[in-house]
This record gives sequence, C-alpha cells and structure tokens, in this order.
Amino acid sequence: MDYEFLSAETVASYIRSKPELASRINPDKITDVNEVGDGNLNLVFIVTDTDGKSIVLKQALPYVRLVGPDWPMTPFRAEREAEALRIHGGFNQELVPEIFIYDPERFVIGMENLSEYRVWRGAMIEGLKHDGVASQMGEYVAQVAFGTSVLGMDAEEQKQLMAKSINPELCKITEDLVFTEPHDDIGRNAVLPENENDAQEHANDASMIHAMGEAKWKFMTSAEALIHGDLHTGSVMVMAKNGDEGESLSKAFDSEFAFYGPVGFDLGALWANYTLNASRGIALGNEDHANWSLSLIDETWQGFEKTFRKLYESRIDSRVWKAEMLEDRLNQWKADAWLFAAAKMSRRIVGLAKVADVEQLEPNLREGAARGILNLARSLAKERHNSTSTEHFVKLAGDTLHHFKTG
Amino acid sequence: MDYEFLSAETVASYIRSKPELASRINPDKITDVNEVGDGNLNLVFIVTDTDGKSIVLKQALPYVRLVGPDWPMTPFRAEREAEALRIHGGFNQELVPEIFIYDPERFVIGMENLSEYRVWRGAMIEGLKHDGVASQMGEYVAQVAFGTSVLGMDAEEQKQLMAKSINPELCKITEDLVFTEPHDDIGRNAVLPENENDAQEHANDASMIHAMGEAKWKFMTSAEALIHGDLHTGSVMVMAKNGDEGESLSKAFDSEFAFYGPVGFDLGALWANYTLNASRGIALGNEDHANWSLSLIDETWQGFEKTFRKLYESRIDSRVWKAEMLEDRLNQWKADAWLFAAAKMSRRIVGLAKVADVEQLEPNLREGAARGILNLARSLAKERHNSTSTEHFVKLAGDTLHHFKTG
Repeated sequence: MDYEFLSAETVASYIRSKPELASRINPDKITDVNEVGDGNLNLVFIVTDTDGKSIVLKQALPYVRLVGPDWPMTPFRAEREAEALRIHGGFNQELVPEIFIYDPERFVIGMENLSEYRVWRGAMIEGLKHDGVASQMGEYVAQVAFGTSVLGMDAEEQKQLMAKSINPELCKITEDLVFTEPHDDIGRNAVLPENENDAQEHANDASMIHAMGEAKWKFMTSAEALIHGDLHTGSVMVMAKNGDEGESLSKAFDSEFAFYGPVGFDLGALWANYTLNASRGIALGNEDHANWSLSLIDETWQGFEKTFRKLYESRIDSRVWKAEMLEDRLNQWKADAWLFAAAKMSRRIVGLAKVADVEQLEPNLREGAARGILNLARSLAKERHNSTSTEHFVKLAGDTLHHFKTG
Repeated sequence: MDYEFLSAETVASYIRSKPELASRINPDKITDVNEVGDGNLNLVFIVTDTDGKSIVLKQALPYVRLVGPDWPMTPFRAEREAEALRIHGGFNQELVPEIFIYDPERFVIGMENLSEYRVWRGAMIEGLKHDGVASQMGEYVAQVAFGTSVLGMDAEEQKQLMAKSINPELCKITEDLVFTEPHDDIGRNAVLPENENDAQEHANDASMIHAMGEAKWKFMTSAEALIHGDLHTGSVMVMAKNGDEGESLSKAFDSEFAFYGPVGFDLGALWANYTLNASRGIALGNEDHANWSLSLIDETWQGFEKTFRKLYESRIDSRVWKAEMLEDRLNQWKADAWLFAAAKMSRRIVGLAKVADVEQLEPNLREGAARGILNLARSLAKERHNSTSTEHFVKLAGDTLHHFKTG
C-alpha cells in the first residue's frame, strides 16, 4: 500500500489542491498545523489560518502506528469512517462531526475541527460532569438503528449499503480482542500481579465463555444497522454550554469500526465505559461522581428508547410490524446491551487495549477496581437471564464494585 | 436488459461456442432439444446427442414469464444460483447438480442433466415414498449452515462472500409474498369462497402477525449462512435406487433465491411442504402416506442435527465456541424452523404461489385442507413458545389437519 503521508510541511499544498477544503480555510494564510493523533492508527492534523478558521485532516496509516509496519492495518478503514460519518450525520449533524471531503487516493478525511470540544473520557477522569451527553448518545444510537435498518430504509438500498459496509479487518480486531482473547490469551493480555488470579478465574469461567461465544456469534451474524462499532467514551467529544461542566453538547467520532452489526453493541459499549469510570470514582472514594457515572446507563437507555419509539411510528413498512415488534426489538437490544457491556468491560481490564480510567489509578486502588470489573462482567453474563432492567444493572455494578474495593 | 435468448434452433451453436460445454456433449450430433421450463422465470433446455450424452442449459429471463415484461426480474439471479450451486456442490456434489459453466453475458447456466431424477413434489402427490431424501436434505442444510458460516469459513472470506451474495430482488419476493401479503393482501391473494372466512381470520390474527413480523425481521437481519432460500419439495429432485420408490438419491436445485440468511428458513420450508403434502393425504383418506409425509419432519431434523454436530467438532475457531454454543445454535434453529414453517405453509394457501398438493384436490376436500393448514400455521406461531420438539410439531399437525378435514 503505497501513498504519500501528510506532514506539517505538506498540509498547505494538500489543502490548495482540494477545492472542498480550500473553501473552508485559506491555504495561503495557515498559521498553525498541529499533529494530535493519538499515536495508534492515524495522523490527525488541526490546521488553522489567520482568520481563525480551522479544519481537521485525518489520514489513515497502513499499519498500527504504535507497533509499526509489522502490524498492517487496511487504510480503507478511512472510507468506512467517512461513509459512516456522512450517513450518521445525515440523521442529525449535531451529534456527528461534519465531513468536507474524503480522498480515496490518500485515505484522508477533511472534517470539522472540534477544538472547542474535548474527549469525554478525559473529562470523566477529571471528575467533570457533562450533562445530557449520555442521553444524546442514546439518541444517536437510536437514529442510526432506525435510519440504517430495514425499518427506516428501502430494503434494496439497505442491502446494497450493508454489502459495501463490510469491514473485515476492523471487525477482526473486535472479534479477537473483545470476545476471544480475554478467555484465550495469545500473549497480548496483562494485569497487575495482584490480579493474576482474577484474570485466570475470569478466563476460565464457563458461563462467561458461553456468554462471550454467544456475543461473538451475534456480532458476526446480526446485520441490523450500520453501527458505530467502537462507541466508548473516548469516541465521544463533549462541550459544556457554560464553563467546564453541566449541560453539554456532544459528537460521536472515530467511526472507522462501522459495519452492519447488532444495535445493542453500541449501547453495551457506552454502558461498559460508564461503569469503568464509576469503578475509578469508587476506588478514589468519589461516590458522588461514581453515582453520576452509573446514572448515565439509564440515561442513555432512556434517550435511546424515547427516540427509537418516535422513529418507529414513522417507519416505511408497517404491514406486519406493529406495536409488538417495537417492544420485541427494545427488549432484545436491552438484553444484548447487557451481554456486550460484559464483553466490553472485562477486555479493558485484561486485554491489550486498556482504559485510562482504571490504568491511571495507583496499583493498590487499581487492584480492587480491576477485580470488581471482572467479577461484575461475570455477574452480568449470568444475571441478564433474570432481569435486564437498567436498575438491576446499576445495582449490580454498585454492589460489586464496592465489594471488591481495595486500598 | 438486452441479451439474446436461447431457442431450440440456437442451442447447438451456443454449445459450440463454449468449450466447457462442447466437452460434455457433441454440438454437431445433437438429437434432441426440449424446453422444459416451468413457465415462470427461466428457459430450461435439455439437450441430448447421438451418444446419449445430455446437459441442461438454464437461462434467466429478465421478467416473470408468466406475467411478461410488466413484472421485470433481474437476470443476475442466475449468477446467485450458479454461485450457490458451485459452493454448495463443493461440500457434497451428491446433493447438488454439477455446474459446468456460468455465462454472465447471457445469464446461462450449463449443468448436469438430471433426467433420471424427478421433482419430489410430483412424486409425493402421486403417493410415492422416496426414502432417505428427507434426511439427505437435512444433511444438505447442515453442510451449508456450517460451511458458509463463520464456523466453517475464514471470517474475512465469509464477509466478502456475504457481501457479494446479496440478492435484493429475490429476497423482496420472499419478504412480500411469504411474510407480508398473507396478512395484507394487495390483490394477489385468492382462496376458495368456502375459505374466505378462514383467510380473513388468519390475516387478522394478531399473534400470527406478530410472529410473521418477527420472522421477517430475522429473514432480513440474520446473516448466518448462504442458504438455499426456496427449499420446498419442488426444489428437490429425487431418484429411487430401484423402481419408483424406496431408498433414493436426491439433489437440491433452483437455488436462485440464495443469500446470507437464517439457517432455520430452509428447514422450515421443508417442514411446511411436508405438511402441505400430508394435508393432501389426510384429505384423500390416505393416512399411511400422510403419516409418512409427517415423519419426514423429524427425519430432516435428525439428518440436519447429526451432520451439524459432526461438522461443529471440526470448526476453525473453537476458542470461545464450546459445547454450549452448539446446543444454543441447534435450539435456535429448531425454534426458527417452527416460525418459518408457519410462514411458508399459510402463504401457499392464501398467497400468489400455491402448491399442487392442495390445489389439485377437489374443492370439497381442498376446503378442509386449506382450513387445516391456516389453523395449523396459527397454532405453530403460538405453540413454539411451549415446545419446539418435532414430536410436538407432528402431533399438532396431525390433530389440526384431521380436525378440519372436509368431504
């Protein structure tokens, strides 16, 4: 895969060559080019001109930057991201960054600069409360679930879009890292020495393996909607309307994992990451923040359910899809979210890609948080057969995380 | 869509132009060209030479022949059929006709002539018993379920195959005719005057509509395997090893509806068509044949289960897919088969495409058979929540069909 990478020096001439970008920012008056990529997969440049206009250029690298060319990674993922951003933005541009151009030759997306926003995970780690975001993300998932499924699209167009949206390489990352490796380490897992036993018990838990097998099958066969595919709190940008926290705006970004998959996967990813943040609050004795983090679980669900109910009323085919079908889908997706939340939280403790919420805790506190999350994941996989209410989820999370608290 | 249709006069020159066909039959010594298409969608020629060699040429028309150019139908379905025949034949050539060539310019499939075989539905209507076929068809469905799913294929190749196997126009026929129109007539339905009330009660049955909504959603989102998609007894060719009946060979053909869908759909289609044949036996007082037809339900299931269990042991990814996953899949597919059987049997009574098993009964007998099938479909949709055993299915079918018998 041979194409030219952008650099701070070549960004201006690149913009000059693309009218869709040159109309957004003046390539002859650029004052700042900052590379802000998170170091894993992409080059990300924030470009600003003398008039204060700015854009973002995101270029996919053909390998995992962290590891280098030894771990190749298709740059065509940029096409999947651009397409998802465009389609999801079509439902509600307020919840997704605006895209100006996709360059299929150099795998570059030119998009809206969200410099007034910040990554939600970082804000949550600082203990800030961005209110309303959890509900907005529920709304986003509902709009995608409806608008890209056979409920909201012509059946033929939906099949064409599904076919073009396959994303094998990025799906494989999820299939391996989320569903498989937490139970079958191929040398990429790691935990604190104090958590070795917890990881082993988790890895060997037959009912958890059973549940993860089911989750993986669903992930690989349930082609419901063009889901985000990696909707953790690091894929959400937030901006408080006033000051550092309180009522906020938000946008889901980094949708390069998008593909036709199960709707509950995005919901479960959010729930898992709220819970991981709550485990930090509990470890630090910040009960107020932990309670707030856990309250987001129901808030996202309510935002999702309310929006989806409304959209369902407007569906294109109502002939055999009546009120019961709506309840079936909501019940199924809630149960699926339990299952996927269990998957998404344990892999963040034992697997390759960890989260700062837990990793940045001192080891004596991290030990209990990690143990709590692993035990919670195992409980969720069992308890979803008894009740799938969000209240039950939150109670189980709070009780389990407190029970295993250390330090 | 402009391409040249084959005719009895042009078949020889067509064969001459294709080395893959000219090696199978001598185009200069052709003695017979018979057009045997069933009159709906395709031209089908059986071509024989002086050495007694023969082949079949099947050409897709760009419209439904029965109706004419007013009902256009993509000829690309021939490509879907050729691909499915090739892939399914790769698992077990004994159960699928061998394909010699696919001509993408004129939508022609050149394939094995099965002139020693006959269509199973016709044989069943005559009261003949072709033993072993039901089990072989269960085996066929199992080999496809395993071999084209993520259990038996590399995940990336499977996604590529899934994308290329979308079949929107033919899926739409099923979505409309099987799942929707039995409950929402757009003018294509018809029944005997004596069955008008039965059709109306069936159309308005809220729990049946609920079940059919669920079936339609599964059909449209559950991308499990490259299923046949139209596996009724008219899509199965049979040949008794000795004489007219008894131990037999069989082949599944006419797979132009193939796409990535739910495994239970093919099983349910077989079950429904066995039951439709049993309704004929019961109407005619041929209890022995009716019992035999109903016994095929369990025979197909056993053939399926036995084959699938064996294949599952050899799967490529066993890491989180253990013994429980196998039981989950078998249980799910059995329950799905109940649901799809209900859909497939009632549409054959009220919908556009009927079956000769019931249609060729005298009206006084047909009345009870039709009423029995419609009531059975409604019962299946409810009773699947209590038990999904094949014994329960067969008992329900026998009791219901006898209860409504007329004449």
